[in-house]
Amino acid sequence: MAPRARTTEVVEAEGHLIDSQLLNVIFDTVIKWGAKFDVQKFRIGRTNEEPSFISMRVTGPDETSLTHVLEELVALGCRIAGTRDATLVRADKDGCVPNDFYSTTNHRTFVRHQGQWIEVERQRMDAVIVVEEGRAVCRKLRDVRVGDAVVCGVEGIRVVPEFRERDRYGFAFMTNEISSERRVETGVARIADMMREVKQSGGRIAVVAGPVVVHTGGVGYFSELVAAGFVDVLLAGNALAVHDVENALYGTSLGVDAETGKAIEGGHRHHMRAINTICRVGGLRRAVAEGVLRSGVMYECIRHNVPFVLAGSIRDDGPLPETVMDLIEAQDQYAAALEGVKLVLVLSTMLHGIGVGNMLPSWVRMVCVDINPAVVTKLADRGSSQTIGIVTDVGLFLHQLSRRLIGD
Amino acid sequence: MAPRARTTEVVEAEGHLIDSQLLNVIFDTVIKWGAKFDVQKFRIGRTNEEPSFISMRVTGPDETSLTHVLEELVALGCRIAGTRDATLVRADKDGCVPNDFYSTTNHRTFVRHQGQWIEVERQRMDAVIVVEEGRAVCRKLRDVRVGDAVVCGVEGIRVVPEFRERDRYGFAFMTNEISSERRVETGVARIADMMREVKQSGGRIAVVAGPVVVHTGGVGYFSELVAAGFVDVLLAGNALAVHDVENALYGTSLGVDAETGKAIEGGHRHHMRAINTICRVGGLRRAVAEGVLRSGVMYECIRHNVPFVLAGSIRDDGPLPETVMDLIEAQDQYAAALEGVKLVLVLSTMLHGIGVGNMLPSWVRMVCVDINPAVVTKLADRGSSQTIGIVTDVGLFLHQLSRRLIGD
Amino acid sequence: MAPRARTTEVVEAEGHLIDSQLLNVIFDTVIKWGAKFDVQKFRIGRTNEEPSFISMRVTGPDETSLTHVLEELVALGCRIAGTRDATLVRADKDGCVPNDFYSTTNHRTFVRHQGQWIEVERQRMDAVIVVEEGRAVCRKLRDVRVGDAVVCGVEGIRVVPEFRERDRYGFAFMTNEISSERRVETGVARIADMMREVKQSGGRIAVVAGPVVVHTGGVGYFSELVAAGFVDVLLAGNALAVHDVENALYGTSLGVDAETGKAIEGGHRHHMRAINTICRVGGLRRAVAEGVLRSGVMYECIRHNVPFVLAGSIRDDGPLPETVMDLIEAQDQYAAALEGVKLVLVLSTMLHGIGVGNMLPSWVRMVCVDINPAVVTKLADRGSSQTIGIVTDVGLFLHQLSRRLIGD
Amino acid sequence: MAPRARTTEVVEAEGHLIDSQLLNVIFDTVIKWGAKFDVQKFRIGRTNEEPSFISMRVTGPDETSLTHVLEELVALGCRIAGTRDATLVRADKDGCVPNDFYSTTNHRTFVRHQGQWIEVERQRMDAVIVVEEGRAVCRKLRDVRVGDAVVCGVEGIRVVPEFRERDRYGFAFMTNEISSERRVETGVARIADMMREVKQSGGRIAVVAGPVVVHTGGVGYFSELVAAGFVDVLLAGNALAVHDVENALYGTSLGVDAETGKAIEGGHRHHMRAINTICRVGGLRRAVAEGVLRSGVMYECIRHNVPFVLAGSIRDDGPLPETVMDLIEAQDQYAAALEGVKLVLVLSTMLHGIGVGNMLPSWVRMVCVDINPAVVTKLADRGSSQTIGIVTDVGLFLHQLSRRLIGD
Repeated sequence: MAPRARTTEVVEAEGHLIDSQLLNVIFDTVIKWGAKFDVQKFRIGRTNEEPSFISMRVTGPDETSLTHVLEELVALGCRIAGTRDATLVRADKDGCVPNDFYSTTNHRTFVRHQGQWIEVERQRMDAVIVVEEGRAVCRKLRDVRVGDAVVCGVEGIRVVPEFRERDRYGFAFMTNEISSERRVETGVARIADMMREVKQSGGRIAVVAGPVVVHTGGVGYFSELVAAGFVDVLLAGNALAVHDVENALYGTSLGVDAETGKAIEGGHRHHMRAINTICRVGGLRRAVAEGVLRSGVMYECIRHNVPFVLAGSIRDDGPLPETVMDLIEAQDQYAAALEGVKLVLVLSTMLHGIGVGNMLPSWVRMVCVDINPAVVTKLADRGSSQTIGIVTDVGLFLHQLSRRLIGD
Repeated sequence: MAPRARTTEVVEAEGHLIDSQLLNVIFDTVIKWGAKFDVQKFRIGRTNEEPSFISMRVTGPDETSLTHVLEELVALGCRIAGTRDATLVRADKDGCVPNDFYSTTNHRTFVRHQGQWIEVERQRMDAVIVVEEGRAVCRKLRDVRVGDAVVCGVEGIRVVPEFRERDRYGFAFMTNEISSERRVETGVARIADMMREVKQSGGRIAVVAGPVVVHTGGVGYFSELVAAGFVDVLLAGNALAVHDVENALYGTSLGVDAETGKAIEGGHRHHMRAINTICRVGGLRRAVAEGVLRSGVMYECIRHNVPFVLAGSIRDDGPLPETVMDLIEAQDQYAAALEGVKLVLVLSTMLHGIGVGNMLPSWVRMVCVDINPAVVTKLADRGSSQTIGIVTDVGLFLHQLSRRLIGD
Repeated sequence: MAPRARTTEVVEAEGHLIDSQLLNVIFDTVIKWGAKFDVQKFRIGRTNEEPSFISMRVTGPDETSLTHVLEELVALGCRIAGTRDATLVRADKDGCVPNDFYSTTNHRTFVRHQGQWIEVERQRMDAVIVVEEGRAVCRKLRDVRVGDAVVCGVEGIRVVPEFRERDRYGFAFMTNEISSERRVETGVARIADMMREVKQSGGRIAVVAGPVVVHTGGVGYFSELVAAGFVDVLLAGNALAVHDVENALYGTSLGVDAETGKAIEGGHRHHMRAINTICRVGGLRRAVAEGVLRSGVMYECIRHNVPFVLAGSIRDDGPLPETVMDLIEAQDQYAAALEGVKLVLVLSTMLHGIGVGNMLPSWVRMVCVDINPAVVTKLADRGSSQTIGIVTDVGLFLHQLSRRLIGD
Repeated sequence: MAPRARTTEVVEAEGHLIDSQLLNVIFDTVIKWGAKFDVQKFRIGRTNEEPSFISMRVTGPDETSLTHVLEELVALGCRIAGTRDATLVRADKDGCVPNDFYSTTNHRTFVRHQGQWIEVERQRMDAVIVVEEGRAVCRKLRDVRVGDAVVCGVEGIRVVPEFRERDRYGFAFMTNEISSERRVETGVARIADMMREVKQSGGRIAVVAGPVVVHTGGVGYFSELVAAGFVDVLLAGNALAVHDVENALYGTSLGVDAETGKAIEGGHRHHMRAINTICRVGGLRRAVAEGVLRSGVMYECIRHNVPFVLAGSIRDDGPLPETVMDLIEAQDQYAAALEGVKLVLVLSTMLHGIGVGNMLPSWVRMVCVDINPAVVTKLADRGSSQTIGIVTDVGLFLHQLSRRLIGD
């Protein structure tokens, strides 16, 4: 007889269930699948500091529906009552797992193994959990190998959602509505405080930047931030670097002169010449070493030993020698570069922003800045309760941020 | 036999036909209606300064189509060859005109009357031309009275399009593409130059502003511009004034604290209390006089005797005593306030921006700033070749503009 | 000594506090103002049907802060424990109220008067509550008259938030994220069901429509809905009617031929001629009666005795005789037309949509359709938990809706 | 002495210079660089069919400026008067060219070699021209090898801009303004006509599609178009295929049920399971062969032998076995797949749309559909006068298109 050939189960959760609106989502989930809940025990936190606790019996119309409900509840931070270990099943093929594998969220996760709750390492979204030698670790599907012990089902798994903290950084009560009708300077002040705090505590800051940083005149300000030590790693695509180089060599971006706003017919010529120039000397680092490239974001990164990863894309011209055109490799380099990062700024790049968001655990904060509210909404919506979205002009945002952190 | 019972006509045009892309539009128009053109004479301007001249025979498939073509060509600056006077027909009813009335563009227009070409006064879009006592004047349809002599048909009318000037203000070669991927600081520098030049030449500057100016933190910078004399008239709606007052009295806008970004549940209370406070003292001017209102855009306008018109709308709360809720009256006050204006800044308000655009002749420049490119495109597209559109955050734009014009 | 010269108060609330995320917002509000809460009693609804109940002591750092907290909590549905009547203060001036007046939400509200809880009539946002002859009624600030007994402070007021209902109409679990990345057909199916249900139950449906309905080719489909009885009242501006008439008379909209997409230079001529034509016969109704206007949205409304209100704006051409240019009058006519309406469709008009949203109690559902996600977000965010936002092309939306409700 | 140590040059151009607004751009270019023009000869096309011709002397303030002017003029279709061959310089390094290399536009180009004008093959943007064995061919910078004879400078090059044709397909006079305020059905009708015409003339149609096609419910309609033979090649990313498979296997997209609109918490599970399922069987083709995948866009492509290329990106989950993660390889496969294509539909994917746009000569038409006007503007602006942009909901667009081409 299968262990879950039943249609009812008791689940428990504790934490800031109300502050984080988890309790509501938990109830919704039960009802949505046609199941019912019956609260067995509920203890509310009497003050802001106290956690709450719930134990409830969930009854589904059938076993399949109950499984759906339980899968969702576990991802939300509920655990099946009782003390069973997580189910481990061996992968029977490279890059594949059993059908009922547990697909991770980006929240801190524990699995029960041999009677112990062990914390999952390298937490990230959309991974599987492999247990080996007493350790549990997130692994991308493609990196699973035959024989790996993969966590399946819903038992013995405990997710700890990043409970919304009401006080840290003063962000708790900033409106989190994503709108262009907000005072950006207020947000910039908070972000500057946060960046200073992260640096003071020895944390690392990653910036994920699109070429719009260049087009909107942000290069000078961004360069200042790099030079001042506020950027520990730069993640971008080929286009950011090419436009940055074009701007450094010719003063143009997208064929528009940065100072005069004058449009150059066939502005692509500058673009292609910038690529040719860098390729000729053998890459960005060589261009800096040989004095060919003397300003800009890439120059400052190289001069200050700020590591960068440039990921290729289907629209790339060139690419520059440093650009990683094998995307498996690029994803791995991105993920490695994000180790130990405490804060990520995503500046005008949905593509790379989503890519990075997928790699991060929920306790790394992301600040997403874009002039298109739909992009900010989409980035802010990828699972992290710790994302701050700002709808504004990126060039002017960087101007404000540099002014706050460094001064005029 | 009617004078245009024919399907062919000779039309002429001269000016910067190529620079202004008029020649292309003229040819397109002919072909579009199934007509044909045969260029009789063409003289190209040999240098940048010289005008071009064209004379061409247009032949339509039938009289109706030819009329359509001619109507469009006249609006583009062509005139029917020959020396006939404009056709005048008496209005037979208040607020109505004959069906073939000439509907104005916003370009400088002349009508031939008693053998003389006379310039049309109060030029604006979508008006009719009434000739009385040897003068021709634009009149709104609703202001036409029985017996008015209304210009009809296409003869004896000459439109002088505002030819794109290549050098003035250095705007000629700024890219006029409307995009968020532009360096705003470049545009701000040009606009600041233009504002200074207009003021030095004794011209007036109008600002048309929406409440987003307040929400995005622009109040302080806008107030500085008013105090420094860069705003000669303010055209807005009730909402700008109410939000400005709320911000002055409570430091909030849309229920969000401007300094902390903290959201106030039921932030509408501040909004309604601001209205109540102003209504209680009898209006904005009284509130300033009595020391109730001590800062903000409206305060600075009143303190510096900058005239303002607040037009009502269906969404207004209150309204404030100064708001004009009769929209016929509001349109008339707007139009009167725009007399002699040389430059108009439209800040985040499509509604009032379109309203103002309709009232202006094409030789008054408009600068349209909005974070939504579609709004800028729409405003820039209402007929004036003299509109500059900037896609950016309005609060930060005002910060930059104030810095440029006034300093830190 | 004033009755609230204290810094602590016990408040209570009951209902679907968790489902509606009210409990979280209540706690947030307390903490945000630097106050503290101490839960005295909490009873959770054990099943989906059971309500929850909370009683908690709120302690503020000072009396002012506590007042702020209490004002927000009352708007959220909490009531001050105890059994005091609401405070009534006489207005001392027309159009003004005491400074601590209670500003309404759009939720169902009761006030305690002479020991009885009485329901507030004509519930709407941003109004004051006047008690007269044992009845309590929402009144716009401008309609308050000297001597009116106005509800002030926070005692004796009970707001009943529109608790999110999990099952009605099947909307409960539709994602309420506003995004262009959704299948519109799914939403259309639900809206069609809702419209049928409202009509079957004898309810009225209002449509608030902008001119984009015409520009995007929605006239034919919208006309079908009117003819089939799915529209009980039309609220719009002058522009909708003018563009609808232009489309009916000339087949163009914004100077673009609806069938061929061909652009007409100076397309404004059609626009102005349409206005002239309607003005000449004396208005839309006369134009229909005399056979001048033979199709379109306005024609169908008139033919089927569907009442309409056209509100003026600063950008109006004409206006048409039926357009109400006095906006106080227009707001009153809108509000009157909305009496008894159960469902409102807002089609591509932020201005009129916000105006209507302000007039409605929270139990009237609004469906907002616009191609710009920011507009939908803004409309959906004005206080009603009962708004459905759909980001799509309005012309194609109307096509789908008509197909669903009427067929091909 | 260098052959261009002078500051003046005579240039010539002929064609539909006015219709294509080329003459205006040519004059602008001269003035912008501080140069002057003096028209030597101008012959206007007397009718719509006749081309125009210009010869003018351009004089620059210095040699460098004149070179800038000439580079731009050549890209616009002017040629240096006289009969010199193009300058060929040998590449001295793989992947690099001389600094004054000629960077291609996407227009048809001829180079003069050994006294003959030869047409450049494989025309595309941002390439260099290599001459070998009497043939001239576009080559990507990275594919240049030591010793290749690369076209440099501006002499002996003739660009033939794709002159705007006034009649073909009836597109000539469709408004080309990019706006959401247009009737989409009008555009769909024209696109359907064009697709039929391309197929009847034996041409190929490529579709470039983003995952929004799936999210907005377009899968069924797109599948119909594939099955009916209107799609000859599909170019997309990994995400389109993964979402298509998820939709086929689970009926969800982005965790939202396509039929009910119900949101699934942790909807990513379906996404990851879809990937796992396809990886397990060894890819999409195997999944179709084994009956695992039984519907959707990828299924129909495979079933009807429609080739597809899936290009990887930094945000990819999986990827699916068929996805090409080496982007050099992916670009080459895209370019190969586009050989002989006459029409490209770009559906909601800026990234792949730009990539494809870069690869195409200007005489291949592109239709770009996206709900975000900024994306359409950006795609339409990449150099082709032959792009049609439609701002609308992609799901509903595909519904309309399928209806037009196939019926209900």
